[in-house]
Amino acid sequence: MARAHNFNAGPAGLPLPALERAQRELLDFEGTGMSIMEHSHRGKAYEGVHDEAIALTRSLLGVPDDYYVLFLQGGASLQFAQVPMNFLPAGKSADYIVTGGWAEKAYEEAGRLGTVRVAATTVADKRYTRIPQQAELKLDPAAAYVHMTSNNTLFGTQWHWLPEVGRVPLIADMSSDIMWRRIDVSKFDLIYAGAQKNIGPSGVVMVLAKKAFIDGARKDIPVILRYATHAANNSLYHTPPTFGIYLIRNVLSHLKDLGGLDVVEAQNRKKGDLLYATIDANPDFFRAPVAKDSRSYMNVVFRLPTEELEKSFVAAAAKQQMVGLAGHRSTGGIRASLYNAVSLESVERLVDFMKSFATKS
Amino acid sequence: MARAHNFNAGPAGLPLPALERAQRELLDFEGTGMSIMEHSHRGKAYEGVHDEAIALTRSLLGVPDDYYVLFLQGGASLQFAQVPMNFLPAGKSADYIVTGGWAEKAYEEAGRLGTVRVAATTVADKRYTRIPQQAELKLDPAAAYVHMTSNNTLFGTQWHWLPEVGRVPLIADMSSDIMWRRIDVSKFDLIYAGAQKNIGPSGVVMVLAKKAFIDGARKDIPVILRYATHAANNSLYHTPPTFGIYLIRNVLSHLKDLGGLDVVEAQNRKKGDLLYATIDANPDFFRAPVAKDSRSYMNVVFRLPTEELEKSFVAAAAKQQMVGLAGHRSTGGIRASLYNAVSLESVERLVDFMKSFATKS
Repeated sequence: MARAHNFNAGPAGLPLPALERAQRELLDFEGTGMSIMEHSHRGKAYEGVHDEAIALTRSLLGVPDDYYVLFLQGGASLQFAQVPMNFLPAGKSADYIVTGGWAEKAYEEAGRLGTVRVAATTVADKRYTRIPQQAELKLDPAAAYVHMTSNNTLFGTQWHWLPEVGRVPLIADMSSDIMWRRIDVSKFDLIYAGAQKNIGPSGVVMVLAKKAFIDGARKDIPVILRYATHAANNSLYHTPPTFGIYLIRNVLSHLKDLGGLDVVEAQNRKKGDLLYATIDANPDFFRAPVAKDSRSYMNVVFRLPTEELEKSFVAAAAKQQMVGLAGHRSTGGIRASLYNAVSLESVERLVDFMKSFATKS
Repeated sequence: MARAHNFNAGPAGLPLPALERAQRELLDFEGTGMSIMEHSHRGKAYEGVHDEAIALTRSLLGVPDDYYVLFLQGGASLQFAQVPMNFLPAGKSADYIVTGGWAEKAYEEAGRLGTVRVAATTVADKRYTRIPQQAELKLDPAAAYVHMTSNNTLFGTQWHWLPEVGRVPLIADMSSDIMWRRIDVSKFDLIYAGAQKNIGPSGVVMVLAKKAFIDGARKDIPVILRYATHAANNSLYHTPPTFGIYLIRNVLSHLKDLGGLDVVEAQNRKKGDLLYATIDANPDFFRAPVAKDSRSYMNVVFRLPTEELEKSFVAAAAKQQMVGLAGHRSTGGIRASLYNAVSLESVERLVDFMKSFATKS
């Protein structure tokens, strides 16, 4: 079967060379007569993979030396709890900028563990179609931290600037756009990202965190939920998800071969610009609900004139091997996710299909 | 490279047919043009795998209908915290039977979250060489639960009977011997097991839990850490580690093809009996420190006359493709882990090597 054009919102497509490498090595990793997943996490073979994944993360993103790079389990959803457990002590409050469904979940989970404030929300009619302006942020200068979600998969919005938060630590959920381009990691005290969009399979979460921030975290919580535990043990306090980290290594190694994140960003912008241009050129048929300055390069959300047309659009696309185009069950509509592994060719094919579908309908 | 004889304590070897199937399907799962790890966890392809893994668990182990089968993240180490968070309310105490290093960790983590008692310990000189007798258990009839560790990887002991705990819920960490044979699941209120010994790769933990027990758990904890959350959503509350669960499916499907857990148990007993017989037949050279009635069929621990001989034993075995034989860094000595995927041929080869090594030394 020819390779599908995978527009899934996550788990998402992975770069073919990363998968082919995994397939080649699956039964015999580097002549050891064992799969990488059969190796001890304390042995040399796995250790090399683990450290290479960390080193590639550091070099691709330019992670400063005073930051830890961790690989944890439990996805972003466990981070929603782990962040306040570590950084929100009694008597303090944390600020949340609520820009979508996942930001809501992060805010609600933190509210079960301590005092939280909404520093800004862009919800209107249960939908989020834009990122707030700096002037809209009602920040508490005494907050334990400010939490933001850099890209919103459900509604297709993305931050294209960084909020000014003064001396308050900034924490970001970057699950759906980590490594879509270089960022200035030093602006954040902690970044977390589930791997299953841009960098690997589900089951691993990447954490980049300032050492001083981790070292000052709460110690009155379970050992396994302290970032400091994993930092002190290079993410080997307990058995890590070795095969997931191995695949991240393969993906990052491929991104490096491509020329690094500047090349990746140029490609991502080309893909997103092409798709948005197609939507904007057919305003009678396609409608993008997101404000132009808040449009996501990772998840392009748009509507057709009717829900019936949306259904037949998704079905007809699937027949041409273009999968994952239905919007989230909570929002409806169409969503094309254009993560790093989606090729320009796949987007060109989608755009051709859209034009033809609009003409015929 | 010929396939290694893998005696790793975990992550451990996996059955070759399960890996070969994964390799075959890695780029194209069932003609979809996508890897299983590129599929949405809410799509039909993955859903089929997920439900098959659960159904195979139910049929192989004979899990009663009033039990949930869950696949979670964070390994047994997160379970050490999650168990008391869910089941140990303020004002109650939990009993721990401490039979090894992992039981100690479970006890210590619970102690950070509530009141815990040691119902029995078999430690002597920092080592554990036996399972306690029923008469040694000082059980609290008002305990919130009793926690036990069915097999102890570091010290090579295993329970071959079940403690009588009255009406108090029994919780077991079965990470290192789940599915080594059939068990009576109904004797337990909750069983958890990291996958990376007998049933899959690292990054997935299997939980079998009585529905009434889960339904009565604490609700004043983060949503993501409540078993009830995952139970209500068939382990799809958030993105599960899809590829790990897929591999568990492959492994369990292979166990079924072999003829089920009775066949697996017979094979495991043959392997363990052969290795222990070899040790016992050479008492001047090999010494098994574990009491005979507590010997583990999963991790066979033994000593040689000197540490130097142990080192050269491990090195000489590695040259013959027998890997993972060094004891845990905290205990020293030799440890041969004989999990389900270790073949009788591998054990025969090890036994031949041991005899020859003893003769030459």
